[in-house]
Amino acid sequence: LSEVYLPSEIIKRKREGLELTVEEIQFFINSYASGALPDYQMAAWMMAVFFRGMSSRERLALTETMLRSGAVIDLSDVPGFKVDKHSTGGVGDKTSLILGPLVAACGAFVPMMSGRGLGHTGGTLDKLESIPGFKTQLSIPEFRKITAELGVCFIGQTPEICPADKKMYALRDVTATVESLPLICGSIMSKKLAEGIDGLVLDVKVGSGAFMKTLHSAEELARVLIETGTSAGKKVSAFITQMDQPLGTHIGNALEVEEVLAVLRNEPAGTKEFAETRKLSILLAAEMLRLAGVCHDLTAGEALCEKALTSGRAMEIFEKVVDRQGGRLNQIPKAKFEHRVVAKDSGFVSRYNTEGIGLASVVLGAGRLKFSDTIDPTAGIISHKVVGDDVRAGDLLFTLRASDTSKFAAAEEMLRRATTISLQKAPTPSLILKHMVG
Amino acid sequence: LSEVYLPSEIIKRKREGLELTVEEIQFFINSYASGALPDYQMAAWMMAVFFRGMSSRERLALTETMLRSGAVIDLSDVPGFKVDKHSTGGVGDKTSLILGPLVAACGAFVPMMSGRGLGHTGGTLDKLESIPGFKTQLSIPEFRKITAELGVCFIGQTPEICPADKKMYALRDVTATVESLPLICGSIMSKKLAEGIDGLVLDVKVGSGAFMKTLHSAEELARVLIETGTSAGKKVSAFITQMDQPLGTHIGNALEVEEVLAVLRNEPAGTKEFAETRKLSILLAAEMLRLAGVCHDLTAGEALCEKALTSGRAMEIFEKVVDRQGGRLNQIPKAKFEHRVVAKDSGFVSRYNTEGIGLASVVLGAGRLKFSDTIDPTAGIISHKVVGDDVRAGDLLFTLRASDTSKFAAAEEMLRRATTISLQKAPTPSLILKHMVG
Repeated sequence: LSEVYLPSEIIKRKREGLELTVEEIQFFINSYASGALPDYQMAAWMMAVFFRGMSSRERLALTETMLRSGAVIDLSDVPGFKVDKHSTGGVGDKTSLILGPLVAACGAFVPMMSGRGLGHTGGTLDKLESIPGFKTQLSIPEFRKITAELGVCFIGQTPEICPADKKMYALRDVTATVESLPLICGSIMSKKLAEGIDGLVLDVKVGSGAFMKTLHSAEELARVLIETGTSAGKKVSAFITQMDQPLGTHIGNALEVEEVLAVLRNEPAGTKEFAETRKLSILLAAEMLRLAGVCHDLTAGEALCEKALTSGRAMEIFEKVVDRQGGRLNQIPKAKFEHRVVAKDSGFVSRYNTEGIGLASVVLGAGRLKFSDTIDPTAGIISHKVVGDDVRAGDLLFTLRASDTSKFAAAEEMLRRATTISLQKAPTPSLILKHMVG
Repeated sequence: LSEVYLPSEIIKRKREGLELTVEEIQFFINSYASGALPDYQMAAWMMAVFFRGMSSRERLALTETMLRSGAVIDLSDVPGFKVDKHSTGGVGDKTSLILGPLVAACGAFVPMMSGRGLGHTGGTLDKLESIPGFKTQLSIPEFRKITAELGVCFIGQTPEICPADKKMYALRDVTATVESLPLICGSIMSKKLAEGIDGLVLDVKVGSGAFMKTLHSAEELARVLIETGTSAGKKVSAFITQMDQPLGTHIGNALEVEEVLAVLRNEPAGTKEFAETRKLSILLAAEMLRLAGVCHDLTAGEALCEKALTSGRAMEIFEKVVDRQGGRLNQIPKAKFEHRVVAKDSGFVSRYNTEGIGLASVVLGAGRLKFSDTIDPTAGIISHKVVGDDVRAGDLLFTLRASDTSKFAAAEEMLRRATTISLQKAPTPSLILKHMVG
């Protein structure tokens, strides 16, 4: 089949709302990945996709073409069900570090490939790298070996995985085409499918700290991701979870590892938020076990997870994988300086602008606004109140941590603006909003 | 005002359907013209403009920014009203060559800057250059001098005029963003305003050989162009004219000059189509005279034009301007070969695919599909029938002309496919569909 495609005709067809053929999508994406198609044609096409969307067939073709633009990891010699989780990103979301060893402790395999934080949301890779010595740049054979032996391994994206996505993502970022459902779908699913997994649990966040601001848009994204993953032959399900306040107490890389260790060591939950990190991790892990066929329903899965936490088995695996990847858990760094933000008024915490809290942590050095920024692993925020809590003037709202004191004032100002204290008590928002299965 | 604009934010605001400020548009277009803004951001923005459109205020800002990206010709020392015509492009449309000297003969000034043909439509510059020696690359002072002395001068677009438009047009062509009303408006009006004119008559073509296929879309374009030109302080009006068949009998560069000379010499019109070329030229010229204040209404303007044709004054000016620009009217070349296409069936000409006829002339060498193609000035087609004419098998439909015989068969096949002969008589389409004033 030596059919010739004219890029501008493909852009025009998409612009007109016509369905592209699988071959047209393959031609367009592969030409871009190879460098034959210039950035400006891809940019125009992506903007047309933003406005016109894509059919299920087009989305699947896009995802599979992006997937095949690079290497697909072969984990067929790992003896069991391979399952991963993907979160659309939030503030204080450290569940990956918990459920990796937790699921491995219960008998499924978690080959976890993660990214870095950008903007107000954190990244699993940055959190892991706050453990001194932790190496996330592994070769594929090492990744395969550790996954097979310990049941879990954490790796960063390697250059050979989805090169088309890398190019497209960088272009989306500067052409205002990030917020396109089919492009988001292609980007997420191509990378996850490249891991060589059999199943995937999605944690689609919704709320003031999430990419999706409404339940409707979160459901739509979840539906599209499930449909595409299922069409590609994988078991996929999703939870829509609330991101109207940070998840748990700790925000920032080394700080979040501390909270992870508290959960894995099965320490008694000191606050409600801490309990929510534990609860969401167990739920997501239980769903991963259900997809893996380790248990028949969520309740049975949650019971297995509780046992793995109380027995210390999950912690044991975490210690092993950290050790195996070069990390020294006993050397987690702590920031030099601390700054306390106390309430000026009494009342109830009625609303958080969670994105604002995430950006305050970035100002302290915990995150980055562009990929070239460096981060301070010790910087971050501990949040002491959840929405619905009562507050008296003088109560501690946030503890700030950083390597120098210069940014405390700016971060405090941002946190105060991100926190609404009212006279009327607001209901504590539910963490789990919806469960969607493929 | 040292406000900083983020290009991706401007793209996003347009994508969301928000109105951009004059300053944002200036920043975006000027950054692109200077090379600071990359093609891919302009491409994404233009596709967003395609979907979201532009307000009158945005369109005017776009046009004026594109205009000011280069030089604006100062014709203030030309003693009178400067008026031009712009056609959206058709097949066999040679009116510019007629109405230039015709309007000049009646006392207004026509500083005419034209482009080349592309695709199925011809360009005034190519037609003029089929006159041996005719020079269209004049300096601005020469252009100003000839316009002042003779009342008319024909020039090609110079590099200093609207550089932003040149860059944007090339990008639109390869990113499927040609068909955007505000971008078309900016491109047309910035170039016309750069000529230093006081008034402009638009000939917006509609039909099978035109860019606009429906009366509604043609009216919309005319309305937007009139509004933008009027806001920029110019007198602007428009005619919507029919392009469901070629204008006149001759299609192709030297062939069209022959028809122009027949009209200017006031030769008796041999066919109906020839008469339509004369009619449209007089109408457009009369409207230009009306805008110039030379006459009070179209009827008076048409009477002045008739007089300028019958007296030979228009022809005299044409001879002078051709001579002044180096052209030798007595040496117009003729093609070596001729090929006759006769009807196979009897009936009535009920429909032309005029774009198909234009493309047949391109195949013969009269036009180009890309700007780098070379053209044969002698190649082209003479059309012998108009829609509504009766035809008997064996009647001459088209005479083809070319420098070699190799393309006659292909062109004949295209012309046969572009011509519908039916048993039922179709009405002859009206030439003038609407007159719109600012």
